[in-house]
Parts: sequence; structure tokens; C-alpha cells
Amino acid sequence: MDLLNETLKKIVSANDDYAIAAQRHLDNLTKPPGSLGRLEEFARRLVAIFRNKNPLLDKKVIFTFAGDHGITAEGVSAYPKEVTPQMVFNFLRGGAGINVLAKHAGAEVVVVDIGVDYDFGRTDGLVDMKVMRGTRNFARESAMTKDEAVRCIEAGISLADGYAKKGYKIFGTGEMGIGNTTPSSAIASVLTGRAVSEVTGKGTGISDESLANKIRVIEEGIRSNRPDADDALDVLAKVGGTEIGGIAGIVLGAAANRIPVVIDGFISTAGALIAYCLEPKTADYMFAAHNSVEIGHKVMLGKMGLKPILDLNLRLGEGTGAALAMLLIEAGLKIYKEMATFGDAGVSSEIIN
Amino acid sequence: MDLLNETLKKIVSANDDYAIAAQRHLDNLTKPPGSLGRLEEFARRLVAIFRNKNPLLDKKVIFTFAGDHGITAEGVSAYPKEVTPQMVFNFLRGGAGINVLAKHAGAEVVVVDIGVDYDFGRTDGLVDMKVMRGTRNFARESAMTKDEAVRCIEAGISLADGYAKKGYKIFGTGEMGIGNTTPSSAIASVLTGRAVSEVTGKGTGISDESLANKIRVIEEGIRSNRPDADDALDVLAKVGGTEIGGIAGIVLGAAANRIPVVIDGFISTAGALIAYCLEPKTADYMFAAHNSVEIGHKVMLGKMGLKPILDLNLRLGEGTGAALAMLLIEAGLKIYKEMATFGDAGVSSEIIN
Repeated sequence: MDLLNETLKKIVSANDDYAIAAQRHLDNLTKPPGSLGRLEEFARRLVAIFRNKNPLLDKKVIFTFAGDHGITAEGVSAYPKEVTPQMVFNFLRGGAGINVLAKHAGAEVVVVDIGVDYDFGRTDGLVDMKVMRGTRNFARESAMTKDEAVRCIEAGISLADGYAKKGYKIFGTGEMGIGNTTPSSAIASVLTGRAVSEVTGKGTGISDESLANKIRVIEEGIRSNRPDADDALDVLAKVGGTEIGGIAGIVLGAAANRIPVVIDGFISTAGALIAYCLEPKTADYMFAAHNSVEIGHKVMLGKMGLKPILDLNLRLGEGTGAALAMLLIEAGLKIYKEMATFGDAGVSSEIIN
Repeated sequence: MDLLNETLKKIVSANDDYAIAAQRHLDNLTKPPGSLGRLEEFARRLVAIFRNKNPLLDKKVIFTFAGDHGITAEGVSAYPKEVTPQMVFNFLRGGAGINVLAKHAGAEVVVVDIGVDYDFGRTDGLVDMKVMRGTRNFARESAMTKDEAVRCIEAGISLADGYAKKGYKIFGTGEMGIGNTTPSSAIASVLTGRAVSEVTGKGTGISDESLANKIRVIEEGIRSNRPDADDALDVLAKVGGTEIGGIAGIVLGAAANRIPVVIDGFISTAGALIAYCLEPKTADYMFAAHNSVEIGHKVMLGKMGLKPILDLNLRLGEGTGAALAMLLIEAGLKIYKEMATFGDAGVSSEIIN
């Protein structure tokens, strides 16, 4: 709990003066003012986050947390939970979607076992931060103890601190965990106040009947566990997941180290929302990668005032959307740094009308 | 006219059998079916365009056509027409938005003078395909003769043929021409049947009053020139622009050579729509880069059945959106080519419900 509390104390807002100076420079580049739209926003925000007029994004990393979920016993997912460790091995061999897209974006992938129900022993390339072998079934009991939830968040913070020290300049979040749209919908419902049915979708592809069951299971889990909507830690512990806690930790650690963090999709956003409820200033450091197919995603982004960068009907997770969005965020920074000004180029900047 | 007619005869549809085979492979990769959304669509379409199960996108090029517009005499633009040649020099020095973003996407930029009202003489790096020194003012007379319009299109086709022969695998379109949203709106109105006011926006940033004038000027230009909505060449000649014709030629040449072409924003889409009206099969080869701020854009995309890839409030043109979209199209192809299958990875592909 000490690391979490110290981290929360370190978080300050991004610097508006830097954002204003950045926009002044952007308006002096050889293009009509504002004509590069959100690319200009990305540049402005990066300058304000780094408090540096000449930031670099040379080292990029995506943290992909894996965890299992006791709630899968209730038949909420289309895939068996054995797929979680199988996909972890796939990540380590470089064969998954996140490996391909992170490489395309020039980002490293750090694969973290934070709660998989499988004994990996010593596995090359896998970061072992296991807090437990899968959460407990929140339809019957609390998914985690409060101490376990804190340990998940602090695992994320430690990673963020470590990669900040190693000179990484932008983080992305990702996850793998069969069943993990279910705790994400539970978190979305509790922390936004929306009905479970308004924030619950078909995950990786269940039937209409299974969706009705999933909604019922979440409703009952919330009713029996009574998570306190004003205490994000309590919500994470009672109806959350280990990887969601790890992602919340990455976001808190990013903000404390003044590093931008690209939030992937629905599950990552549930983790980001936990961080936001612990410290709303974290939103200054977040970039929402994309608009997930999951219906609860938009509701959570809205609460944090974030607008997704991409809308490509993605619903894979792993950090795949974050990798793609990094390419666009970096494009914004390159515009800011590499374009000629009107003065340099001898282009008339005068507007006639 | 011979080159245009021969090119039109060469254009065939993309191959559905290849698209089906590509989707079969995509469904066998280690992810829930369809979970990479539009990235899968991009891969499927590329395979169908190339009729090749293992396509490459190693050589990319964006054609940025520059031209001037007699219609600027009517006060339709926020910038003086001197900016067109100034920006051409900026492109050649590498200081413009398109230079930065094309480099980010690994694409070359080919800058083409197709109709700038300036004598460049011999200028290193500039492709001289000048058809005329700016179009005539279509508020008073036809912008071009039919012969001039054909020469613009054939300039684009020649470039497309040449770069296809040199082994380029994907084309992007771009343009620069002060005043060129005005002919684009005129084309959009005539070829989609919508009112001028429904397809006319503020371009690079004119006032409300100037917008009302712009709409009036376009309406009068259409009324006096009477372009034939069933004859896209007539529309291009009477109310179009040289760079719009060049882009139409790139699209036709891309389709004839079975090469994908990424259509940038509003003006590029007007060029693509000319090509589409000459031969609707060209749509099989088009990727719509982004959703422009210009209101007429969506109407034209809708007519061609295209859905934009990005929505970043861009309104710069030059090919900037096309460069960014190339990064995502390429991401789709990498997913298709580099991800492991369920069999390779030992991941269970069985869906339980």
C-alpha cells in the first residue's frame, strides 16, 4: 500500500503552458491552422505531458498482463480458460496479434503473468508477478482480497517505474485473460452507475443466450459483493481481475513518471478507470487507442473525457489497438518536430478573408 | 483519348475467390474470428486485388498533384493562389506535412505540376506534366476543354503505369491547389445529385459569409456550364481541376494495373469519383483514407460504397491522410502474413458455446 500511496502523491496535472506554446508552434507550420486535427492535439498533449518542447518517443513498450478469472465457471466466455496460458506461450514465441502489431509500431512487448491459473515455473521472457492463480468466482465471493488487489496495482506501478528509469518514453497497455470482459463490465457498471445490460457485450463472441446469462451473473455478483462505488480499490477487489489491477498500476505509474500511456480497449479501459477513480489527474496522461466493439467502452471513456483515436471494429485486446494508436500519436509528434514553418519555407501565411 | 480508353478496357473486378481464401486463413490465426475487424478486411481486399496469397507492400508512393484554379478570382479561398507554387517548393524541400507523414509511413512522395499558374522551368524533383497554367474561371466559362481534361487524366494514368512497372505495390493520392475544394464540391454536387449547399464546406478556413459566396459561385458555375451528370469527363472539364483529373488518372491506372490506391480526403475523393463514374469497378481498388471535415466527403464515399479508415479531423490534403492510412492497411497485411495459426501455436480454437 505504501508504493500505491506514494505514487498517488506524485501525480500532477500535465502543463497547460507547454500545451499553449506547442499550439503556437503548430500554428506557425506550413498548413492552415488546425488542419492536421487530432495529430496536432497529440503533439500538444505530449509536449504538455513531458514539459519539454522537444520530446522524443524513441523507446516504446506495451505491457500485456495475463490473468485468469474464477467467474469463467459460470459460462461467461466462448473459450476455455486453458487458452490463457496457451496464448501467453504464443506471445513469448511472437505469434500473436500483439507481437505483429507492436513490431509494426516499433514497440517492445512485455508479457506479465499477474494471475494466470497455470504454473509457468521459470519461463524465458515472461515477467513473473503472479499475485494468485486466477481470481475467485465473484458470483460466489470476492474476486480478490483488498491486499491482493493492491499487490496487482503495485506490480503495475513497479513495472512503470522500472521502464521509466530505463528511458522508455511511451507505454501501452494490453491484456489476455479468458473471461475478462465480465469483470470489466462489472467495473464499468459500478463506477459509471450504468445498468449492467448497458455496459455488457459479447466479448470474444458468445451467443445471445450466453449474453443474457453473462448479464445475470454480473448483476448477481454486484448484488452479493456490494462493491463501494466510491472506493475503486474495493471495486477492483470484489469484481475485478488481476490484469485489470496491473493495468491500473501502469496508468498510475505512467502519470507519476509523466509518461504518456496508450489505453488499449475495453478491459484496459476498465483498468484505466480504476486508476482514474483513485486519481483523476491520470486522465491527462492517457490516450484512448480505439473504440472497442464492446458497448461499455464508450461509457467509461466518456467518464474520463477521452476520445478514441481509432475505430476499426477491433475486439482482440492484448494491446493491439494501443500499438496501432502509437503510430498515429508518433505521427503527431513528427509533424510538430519536422515540418517547416511559414518563415523557413517562404510560404505566405496571410489569410485573405 | 486512346490511353484512357485502353486503360478503361483493362479494368476488371478484384477476385472474390482470393478474398474468401484469405478470410479462411485469417480465421485460422490465434484470435477469435473477426476480432481484428477492419485490419482483416484490409488483408482480404489486398489479397483479392493482387490475386496473390502472399502479397508484398514493400514499395509505396504518394502522388501529390498541384494545380491552380481560375475560380479563385471569385474569392472562394482563404489563401492567395501564390501559395500553390510556394507549397510545391516546400514539398520539394521536404518541409510539408506530406513529406513528414509519407516518411513516417515509408512511402515516397512524387510531386507533379499538372496545372500550376507558375513557370517552374526545370526544377529538380518536380515532375512536369503541366496541362495548363491554372484552369479557367468556371463561374464564367468552362474550366477546361474536354481535351485538356483527358490530358490531365492521361497524365495520371502514365504515372500509374510507370510506377507499376517500377514495382511499386501501393499508391496514395494527394493534391495541392489553392481553391480546389470549390471544383471538388461542384463535382460532388453534379455526380451525386445533392444540392451544392449539402456538399460545400469551409475548405482551409473561410468565414460564414465567404461560404455563402462560395456556394453561390458554385451554383452559378453549374447553372451556366450545364455539366452532363452522365458524362464524368464533361463534369471534370466544365467544373473540375487539373489535379482532380490527375488523381482520377492515378485511380484508373491503379485499377488497370491491379494495384491498391489510397484515396486521401475531399479533393482526392472528387478525383476518385470521376474515375468511378467512368468505370465503377475501380472502387474494388480504392481504400478511403479518412473522413474529411468537408461535408461533401461522406456523400461521395457513400456513392462509391467506401468507408473511411481514419477520422482525425484532418483537412490538409496533400496526401497526408493517405500516408497515415497506409500504415494501417500495411498492419492488416502483416497480421495476415505474420501471425501464428492455432495449429502452429498449440492454442485451442474450440469455441464452447
